[in-house]
Amino acid sequence: MATKKEIAAFMASAFPQCKCVVDAVGGRSATVRHKIGVDELRPGGTVSGPVLMTVADVALYVAILGEIGIVPLAVTTSLNINFLGRPSPEKDIIGVCKLLKVGKSLAVGEVTLYSEGEQQPVAHAVGTYSIPPHAKR
Amino acid sequence: MATKKEIAAFMASAFPQCKCVVDAVGGRSATVRHKIGVDELRPGGTVSGPVLMTVADVALYVAILGEIGIVPLAVTTSLNINFLGRPSPEKDIIGVCKLLKVGKSLAVGEVTLYSEGEQQPVAHAVGTYSIPPHAKR
Amino acid sequence: MATKKEIAAFMASAFPQCKCVVDAVGGRSATVRHKIGVDELRPGGTVSGPVLMTVADVALYVAILGEIGIVPLAVTTSLNINFLGRPSPEKDIIGVCKLLKVGKSLAVGEVTLYSEGEQQPVAHAVGTYSIPPHAKR
Amino acid sequence: MATKKEIAAFMASAFPQCKCVVDAVGGRSATVRHKIGVDELRPGGTVSGPVLMTVADVALYVAILGEIGIVPLAVTTSLNINFLGRPSPEKDIIGVCKLLKVGKSLAVGEVTLYSEGEQQPVAHAVGTYSIPPHAKR
Repeated sequence: MATKKEIAAFMASAFPQCKCVVDAVGGRSATVRHKIGVDELRPGGTVSGPVLMTVADVALYVAILGEIGIVPLAVTTSLNINFLGRPSPEKDIIGVCKLLKVGKSLAVGEVTLYSEGEQQPVAHAVGTYSIPPHAKR
Repeated sequence: MATKKEIAAFMASAFPQCKCVVDAVGGRSATVRHKIGVDELRPGGTVSGPVLMTVADVALYVAILGEIGIVPLAVTTSLNINFLGRPSPEKDIIGVCKLLKVGKSLAVGEVTLYSEGEQQPVAHAVGTYSIPPHAKR
Repeated sequence: MATKKEIAAFMASAFPQCKCVVDAVGGRSATVRHKIGVDELRPGGTVSGPVLMTVADVALYVAILGEIGIVPLAVTTSLNINFLGRPSPEKDIIGVCKLLKVGKSLAVGEVTLYSEGEQQPVAHAVGTYSIPPHAKR
Repeated sequence: MATKKEIAAFMASAFPQCKCVVDAVGGRSATVRHKIGVDELRPGGTVSGPVLMTVADVALYVAILGEIGIVPLAVTTSLNINFLGRPSPEKDIIGVCKLLKVGKSLAVGEVTLYSEGEQQPVAHAVGTYSIPPHAKR
């Protein structure tokens, strides 16, 4: 297992270009946040799909690292996302991941994505990560 | 319908931050390319998942615009991606989209993603776009 | 909106071959149950994948009918399922659906599937239904 | 590798309830067929979603057995399906699978589903199978 502080330090070092911040991690779950600015918008004045996919992927990764420790080589094997509503261009995107399974070689989780402070989700994703053999735990 | 030149101009104007280039479009298909540099890599020296998701999403969007014309408000409603192999950190990612359906309100397509020059795909995606009513065609 | 009794009567009439029973419906959710016998098993002594997909699809349909009333022509537009564990060959499969969105033309929900009495899910699905225009509600 | 005859015999013995017939297998692909009768229909006079999911799952399984030999314990780990059109209630459903990857522990393929004789697909699926260790090949 890894703490929020350890994961945040690892993310900053391994993914310096990633704009996601770890808000919480633990108990097979994680919450991450992505600031929204002009770079994240698309026509219609809303957040672009790839930004939401990125938040989903990072939320899964952080939740998994929270369970198995810092295993950089855990990699996404699949991701499915449904877009449910139009995100606000003025609010951070919040991704809340709950892990459904943490096996020896595979972890599966779901992520609900919100515009900060809103009740209705803007997207929902399910993803699978492959955990390399001999990952420390 | 829109030409490659029209779509490239629209993409540059509407998504200035997008690093994808349109290589080809037409006949219910499209090919896009994304340069890979240090910003696109992740631990293990490979291309990060969100970059591949972005290429898949853009390839779909471009193929759809090629069929229905410049309809900025066409939006992704779902995307499913499977990661199949480790992309080279030194080669462009190429996304080849073939549309499976172009209906009045919904378009569906599949995208195969390659490291340039390789035979084996690195990922495969299927996505759905919602087309707004009264879109010019 | 439709009650459990109305939906059960409709399902028995419209899908006489369907082995799913409605356990509960309401509040944007539904629980359905599928008896498991020799017809539902596959090599390895476990429940076959298509049975789990069927339960997921029916749970979604029932939850949606619970919200919008008996709209027979609501149809699945996509379904994504992840298999998480080996279901018991001796226990009913229970599908618990929670709707994520009920829009005018589209409804999206997630379904967690269990072997009855177990804590760990055996599968998790997300599906989308198209709701025909002028559906009574 | 297994031949069409070996796979058909195995399917008949291991899945006696399965109504799918193997039309062709080999070269990382497979074609299966499902007769459509009153049991396969749903309101609206069309083929029910779970029947299409079953054909997709079986087409994948057959294509994989064609590559790795009769490995009964290969199991689906995920399946994503998009429904593209209304299948005819009077025509067999044909599923054509092409494998995208056959790895040591995972195989991924796509399946296009047709009403026999039609050009436009009625559905498209992508699925992943887990191959047990020490599977004979």
